[in-house]
Amino acid sequence: MSTRRLEAFADGVFAIAATLLILNVDAQVGEGSGAIGHRLLAIWPSYIAYAVSFVTIGIIWSNHHTVMGQLGRVNRVFLLQNVFLLMCVAFLPFPTRLVAEHLRDRHDLQPAALAYGATMTVMAVCYIALWIYAAGGRRLLREDSDPRTVSGITRSYLPGAPLYLTATLVALASPLASVALYGAIALFYVIESSIFGGATTESP
Amino acid sequence: MSTRRLEAFADGVFAIAATLLILNVDAQVGEGSGAIGHRLLAIWPSYIAYAVSFVTIGIIWSNHHTVMGQLGRVNRVFLLQNVFLLMCVAFLPFPTRLVAEHLRDRHDLQPAALAYGATMTVMAVCYIALWIYAAGGRRLLREDSDPRTVSGITRSYLPGAPLYLTATLVALASPLASVALYGAIALFYVIESSIFGGATTESP
Amino acid sequence: MSTRRLEAFADGVFAIAATLLILNVDAQVGEGSGAIGHRLLAIWPSYIAYAVSFVTIGIIWSNHHTVMGQLGRVNRVFLLQNVFLLMCVAFLPFPTRLVAEHLRDRHDLQPAALAYGATMTVMAVCYIALWIYAAGGRRLLREDSDPRTVSGITRSYLPGAPLYLTATLVALASPLASVALYGAIALFYVIESSIFGGATTESP
Amino acid sequence: MSTRRLEAFADGVFAIAATLLILNVDAQVGEGSGAIGHRLLAIWPSYIAYAVSFVTIGIIWSNHHTVMGQLGRVNRVFLLQNVFLLMCVAFLPFPTRLVAEHLRDRHDLQPAALAYGATMTVMAVCYIALWIYAAGGRRLLREDSDPRTVSGITRSYLPGAPLYLTATLVALASPLASVALYGAIALFYVIESSIFGGATTESP
Repeated sequence: MSTRRLEAFADGVFAIAATLLILNVDAQVGEGSGAIGHRLLAIWPSYIAYAVSFVTIGIIWSNHHTVMGQLGRVNRVFLLQNVFLLMCVAFLPFPTRLVAEHLRDRHDLQPAALAYGATMTVMAVCYIALWIYAAGGRRLLREDSDPRTVSGITRSYLPGAPLYLTATLVALASPLASVALYGAIALFYVIESSIFGGATTESP
Repeated sequence: MSTRRLEAFADGVFAIAATLLILNVDAQVGEGSGAIGHRLLAIWPSYIAYAVSFVTIGIIWSNHHTVMGQLGRVNRVFLLQNVFLLMCVAFLPFPTRLVAEHLRDRHDLQPAALAYGATMTVMAVCYIALWIYAAGGRRLLREDSDPRTVSGITRSYLPGAPLYLTATLVALASPLASVALYGAIALFYVIESSIFGGATTESP
Repeated sequence: MSTRRLEAFADGVFAIAATLLILNVDAQVGEGSGAIGHRLLAIWPSYIAYAVSFVTIGIIWSNHHTVMGQLGRVNRVFLLQNVFLLMCVAFLPFPTRLVAEHLRDRHDLQPAALAYGATMTVMAVCYIALWIYAAGGRRLLREDSDPRTVSGITRSYLPGAPLYLTATLVALASPLASVALYGAIALFYVIESSIFGGATTESP
Repeated sequence: MSTRRLEAFADGVFAIAATLLILNVDAQVGEGSGAIGHRLLAIWPSYIAYAVSFVTIGIIWSNHHTVMGQLGRVNRVFLLQNVFLLMCVAFLPFPTRLVAEHLRDRHDLQPAALAYGATMTVMAVCYIALWIYAAGGRRLLREDSDPRTVSGITRSYLPGAPLYLTATLVALASPLASVALYGAIALFYVIESSIFGGATTESP
């Protein structure tokens, strides 16, 4: 099975999940009352939630690309692992809306923050699982993939799950701190990419 | 007509239908009242329905890929058969929502279970129909396609329609058993793929 | 500019517009009251409208593929013409919903039938306009495109606009007859493709 | 990293954002009361807003293609810049709906016009930023890209941000004039493309 169609399906889910996030903003402004100018300002958490989740999906998409670039073949187990990863990606608009909705009034933020963190933690677990499956014993790697690149990917993906699990557990003590952490993790990747992401790669 | 654009259109419909499933979960939590934490737990059937339908679409997509990999050409009849298959795929979020909605209160589950099963049965019929059309007399097969692979695909796709028809008819006696069967079929494919899906295929 | 990205954008719009049609069915069943089994049967026009519009989009997509297969290059005028065509395609779910909604109670069907027909007529005009632009003086055709294939495409696309315009005008006298005509046109293409669409084309 | 998957992700977001615009029209007609024929005429601003935003997204997509055609490679910074651009593209259906909703009754149009203009201004800034990054010092350009084409792109993209900023500021004095300007800018690109866009480019 070619990697091309897996990429097409994955790119579709990434693009749709990211674009559907705007429906949450739409729903938020529709629920309010009063002048539209006031409502547009009152739903500020929706804009931040939109940006954080969009960038997060963008980063996962970019990482997915990095992984696929190392692979020379795929099999049905790997396809299935991708379906589970994409199931988490497509799920993300749901907890994003919950957080945006409850960040506004600080009321009942805890369940929303736990739902968002749980989704991100499961997604990070799926991610590292499929990479370890593909790279373990060089099972699906390209003949000419560089061992240093491969171990570099492993090193940079391993912290994801514990990081998001920690942020999720923080929600038990302080939901607001937990939500700030989710934003900080996305911001960290943006800054890190801006500083270290200038190395160019040839297009095929 | 190239197979490439058929794949692009199909991958688009598969990806969108799968991603739209989250709107069902969204709608379910929006309808409840009470604390959000409680509502998030109360809609547990929506999560299971989301996962079962997402995995089901993922498996159909993966099978679609297997079929297309055997084809060397397509014609307008085959394109039309694909349009009918994709019409069923895009329809799936609708009965999925019905089942999730009525699984919660066990009330009126029968019509929902029948709608879900009917959709899956028609989809399985479309699937085997397009495969038989493509493979019959090797009409659309690649020159170098392996007869053993071809008959293997036929053998593994034939049980789909009777299996789903049976599960649909079970809903007449026990809707709950029928819904459990739909989940079990998806779970079977996941486990089967995990055990036997490790054979690798070269990417093109 | 390559034809590849135009195809990717077009395939995306075709796939999304077709898949969004299910939201209309969803909205219809949500509005009713009473037992779900009864509501599922009462919204039968939604299923027919879903199928007719899905097949219609599938046929337009398949024709778009036929056109693109004859082209060797594109320019900005042609891209813009495609944007206008896709604007009609993406618009189709809206009048589809109107027809389905008002077919149920036969009340106020005329405006819905006119809106559906107007959309299809404008789409057919956009279609023939972009084909005439591309094929006129062989402006964008491939070097090796067959003149007989080209004039065959012209012959088969020319009747579309007057056909849909006629069906639209019929709505002024009988909205129901007009809606039946829209269904009949889609059915005609399905039957025509089933009988004459068996000629195979090599994949690239 | 190849340019191909960036294009696939971008084309997906462009196609979905454009296709989701129809949901705004749908929501508008659903809110009204009275005969459907009357409501279909009353929501005329929704049709104009749909067309303007669809064409605008189509033009941005076409420009994105022009930019990608000049690039020989991408890096993580460029990917991130694209994620920010696409975040604006996916945001556009939201202010489009606000403008359409408030254009009808002229009430409270100012915040909607400001939101639309701000989105377009930020999008234009993202656009010129990613082009300057890619073309500056020929960082990501193809070896054989023509310096005249490159400086031509720079010249034609630079006015976008100040143009949209001006139209946004006009909303402070006259929201209606501002909205007319947004439409005029889209119309200008359509007419300009129709007149000067006839130069053909080879497909790859």
